[in-house]
Amino acid sequence: MQPAARTNLADTAIDNIRAEIITNRWPVGERIPNEAALADMLGVSRGTVREAVRVLVAQGFLETKQGSGTYVRSITNPEESLLRIRRTGLRDQVETRCALEVEAARLAAIRHTPEVIDDLRQLLTERGEYDTARHDSYVERDLAFHKAVVAASGNVALMEVYEFFSVSIQEVIRATVTGELPEPDMAAHAAIIDAIASGNPERAASITRTFMAPILLELDRLLAS
Amino acid sequence: MQPAARTNLADTAIDNIRAEIITNRWPVGERIPNEAALADMLGVSRGTVREAVRVLVAQGFLETKQGSGTYVRSITNPEESLLRIRRTGLRDQVETRCALEVEAARLAAIRHTPEVIDDLRQLLTERGEYDTARHDSYVERDLAFHKAVVAASGNVALMEVYEFFSVSIQEVIRATVTGELPEPDMAAHAAIIDAIASGNPERAASITRTFMAPILLELDRLLAS
Repeated sequence: MQPAARTNLADTAIDNIRAEIITNRWPVGERIPNEAALADMLGVSRGTVREAVRVLVAQGFLETKQGSGTYVRSITNPEESLLRIRRTGLRDQVETRCALEVEAARLAAIRHTPEVIDDLRQLLTERGEYDTARHDSYVERDLAFHKAVVAASGNVALMEVYEFFSVSIQEVIRATVTGELPEPDMAAHAAIIDAIASGNPERAASITRTFMAPILLELDRLLAS
Repeated sequence: MQPAARTNLADTAIDNIRAEIITNRWPVGERIPNEAALADMLGVSRGTVREAVRVLVAQGFLETKQGSGTYVRSITNPEESLLRIRRTGLRDQVETRCALEVEAARLAAIRHTPEVIDDLRQLLTERGEYDTARHDSYVERDLAFHKAVVAASGNVALMEVYEFFSVSIQEVIRATVTGELPEPDMAAHAAIIDAIASGNPERAASITRTFMAPILLELDRLLAS
């Protein structure tokens, strides 16, 4: 499977529109050009423009007023905007990771064998508590634990998508251990294993969602501030 | 983001072990070599072997008996095995698609604007009912609808992962329109839009899960038979 060209076009359109806003070429409160004009300007289809605008509205850079058009929202300074982009990126990654791990835990609850549970417990023990002296190996082992949860789903497609996504996941893990985001503790990790071992898919899904919740809440708080 | 090498290694290990089983080199009921021997044989790490075995157990090719080892499960004939591989692949894809679309609908319920809802309704109208005469354009427009739901989440990472995965998603759409799998009707699609428009994330998530449920049930039934 290859990432298709369309997302890249949308990504480029997002970056270009954001650049217009951050560099103040489109001042705050001003209406941006309409879909057709933007498509022309950026050399992409109107569908791609619509997708890009939708994302920038969700990221808080633009706002649409019904029947009137799309406007630039208040941005106090460029550094803040860059921080906002990074945090929006982190939030997007955590939300996506959450979707994949919740589904994996749900399926693992149905399909696991006793060996899988032993294996997960061993991986968690090997990871241990965080220690700055072995930062890199900790990040690696934490990722190995979460990958093993995904593999326990017995779903090859899910494993492949998670792998595609694992560079971003490592970034999120780094942001938690450096204290930028709350870090789920050993007990929270062990609770995921217990929920899978219980064989109850809804319980496994809900425990995994609870595991991710404090990280998402903190990102929402940082983005709102 | 690039798919890392590890999944490819696991994928190759899965294919190689499956080949041993399908070609009957490892007869039904026989214990397969232990982890260390398999790692040696396949030229991969023991971790990769463990991952591959986990997947093959979930796919029903192997079974682990606690404290005794891993055994080859009954396989009646090679054609049936190949069909089983394809169906397991389809089920894996539907499950993954389900995880991504459920999360997207949940977030879209929180973040959508009235324009997004109008846009989704228009895309569904453009798609219309299935007609064999315009098979390809129908599959394309159905995918465009589901991609727009994902974009309505305002989550760039989710869009990127969905795009990475969209070749598989088209295969699933094809299997539904050709009657191999149950096809959600116009009303089921419209229900997703209504749930997003309601602004209730849990409702949007649950309606989307209900949308996928008949396809997953049928795949489970086919795999069990």
